[in-house]
Amino acid sequence: MSFRIKRLAIIGVGLIGGSLARALRAADVVDEIVGCGRGKANLDLAVELGVIDRYSHDIAEAVQGADMVFLAVPLGAMRDAFAAMCDVLGDDALITDGGSAKGSVVNDCRDAAPDLLARFVPGHPIAGTENNGVAASFAELYQNRRVILTPLQQNSATDIDRVAQMWQTCGAEVTKMSVAHHDEVLAATSHLPHMLAFGLVDMLARLKENDEIFRYAAGGFRDFTRIASSNPVMWRDICIANREALSPMLAAFAEEMNELAQRIGSADADALLEIFERAKAARDRYVDGLKQD
Amino acid sequence: MSFRIKRLAIIGVGLIGGSLARALRAADVVDEIVGCGRGKANLDLAVELGVIDRYSHDIAEAVQGADMVFLAVPLGAMRDAFAAMCDVLGDDALITDGGSAKGSVVNDCRDAAPDLLARFVPGHPIAGTENNGVAASFAELYQNRRVILTPLQQNSATDIDRVAQMWQTCGAEVTKMSVAHHDEVLAATSHLPHMLAFGLVDMLARLKENDEIFRYAAGGFRDFTRIASSNPVMWRDICIANREALSPMLAAFAEEMNELAQRIGSADADALLEIFERAKAARDRYVDGLKQD
Repeated sequence: MSFRIKRLAIIGVGLIGGSLARALRAADVVDEIVGCGRGKANLDLAVELGVIDRYSHDIAEAVQGADMVFLAVPLGAMRDAFAAMCDVLGDDALITDGGSAKGSVVNDCRDAAPDLLARFVPGHPIAGTENNGVAASFAELYQNRRVILTPLQQNSATDIDRVAQMWQTCGAEVTKMSVAHHDEVLAATSHLPHMLAFGLVDMLARLKENDEIFRYAAGGFRDFTRIASSNPVMWRDICIANREALSPMLAAFAEEMNELAQRIGSADADALLEIFERAKAARDRYVDGLKQD
Repeated sequence: MSFRIKRLAIIGVGLIGGSLARALRAADVVDEIVGCGRGKANLDLAVELGVIDRYSHDIAEAVQGADMVFLAVPLGAMRDAFAAMCDVLGDDALITDGGSAKGSVVNDCRDAAPDLLARFVPGHPIAGTENNGVAASFAELYQNRRVILTPLQQNSATDIDRVAQMWQTCGAEVTKMSVAHHDEVLAATSHLPHMLAFGLVDMLARLKENDEIFRYAAGGFRDFTRIASSNPVMWRDICIANREALSPMLAAFAEEMNELAQRIGSADADALLEIFERAKAARDRYVDGLKQD
């Protein structure tokens, strides 16, 4: 394959950005990698580990001469990142990102750097671990994982292909969908479950005898609430970035739980059994689907 | 220790009942174990595996001459079980159970067999796996697991101690609390999370493009919804049995999720961060607590 990157700028050298750098290096398709971030210790470590060749704390400086820019900053920092590179990015440079919500990132680009919109191909690798920082990054993170691209009508087919090729080089399976559809799907499969886990743990923590309640929590509870240990700042940003999809979905779920509470209260055995059987069947189908993958 | 059972009757020889039988046998503290259940194949297997010595399909027959009876039937079958042994149980026989809700079982005993109430010491081993039937049972299931006893004011201290000793012999850590408190604690730590998992999977399964949504679900979703594969009939029974504690708790959670949906919709960054930080801190404390155990 003729895919090659001359100079890759990674804005945000953590688990996501660092793993992309490592995977592209492992595939030997990149000549130089420039990192950008705020923490000096993390960036020094990234150089030491060979993840990046050099770094700058300044985005405008880091993207100089880059033909590919990967934005792996928190969703709340995307707008400033676009603004910083608006006037300095070379004409042949492509931009993509790894944000968990896409509508907000597209809006940030449109507002802060409208001239870059045509060369920004939004993306979202569905991958991650519980660990943060470049120390947690590894070249295999994206192997056999899905990456969703949400191309804009302004993007050229060539540019979209080039971003897709970058991810395929890392071993990922690339699919495409609209920005709005991505944000709906992720609200349902990721953002809503996180809200329930955060909400459950928060509610139990505020109960009078919460120490005792946590003491008697069984294994299922531990699995269920594992995701409540995720980064609060990141999740605040995701909620706000994807609020148009997430807020109504969470409200609809609350309404369903309210109805379920009433069915339980009135001991409506048939309705309860129907709900639980439908859920079990769907969950079993989902797990069977994973096994076939 | 002088603890010994001459004849143990296990009503319901599945994972819970079978594992108790195996653990007591392994500790060599029981002379004879009589099983009771509906499925002949499961009971034949239980004899073949050495879990029980013999069995009857009839509860009244199975409990003849027993000095300890363990009820491991579904919550919806407890009342009939008490009724069946009401007139046949020997005066020196103790009864305990493994039901996930305690108020309903106590009511069932009071209604169907009031004379047995003084000799019924309700219990709940906080243990289990995803598998059912005697084939899934094993002697170590209760080792280092908690068993909650909810003694009644009619119980004698000697009888309570005897049931506690039985579980300690299986390696369990026995604690005591009131019936009402048990049902509150379990509603919070087990029943409510199950409702959220069932409800989430059910809601996603009814979305228009549910196949696609399940396809993009990440690992966290899988953990979160594992418990939605639990037995629907058992959970229908648990919900109805513990409806007085569970229904208001689920309604309160629904109200909180509704408020969270509004905070997300209005991009209330400070409130969101506060909730997520509080939840993460509580969850991290919980996991630290597990490690210390």
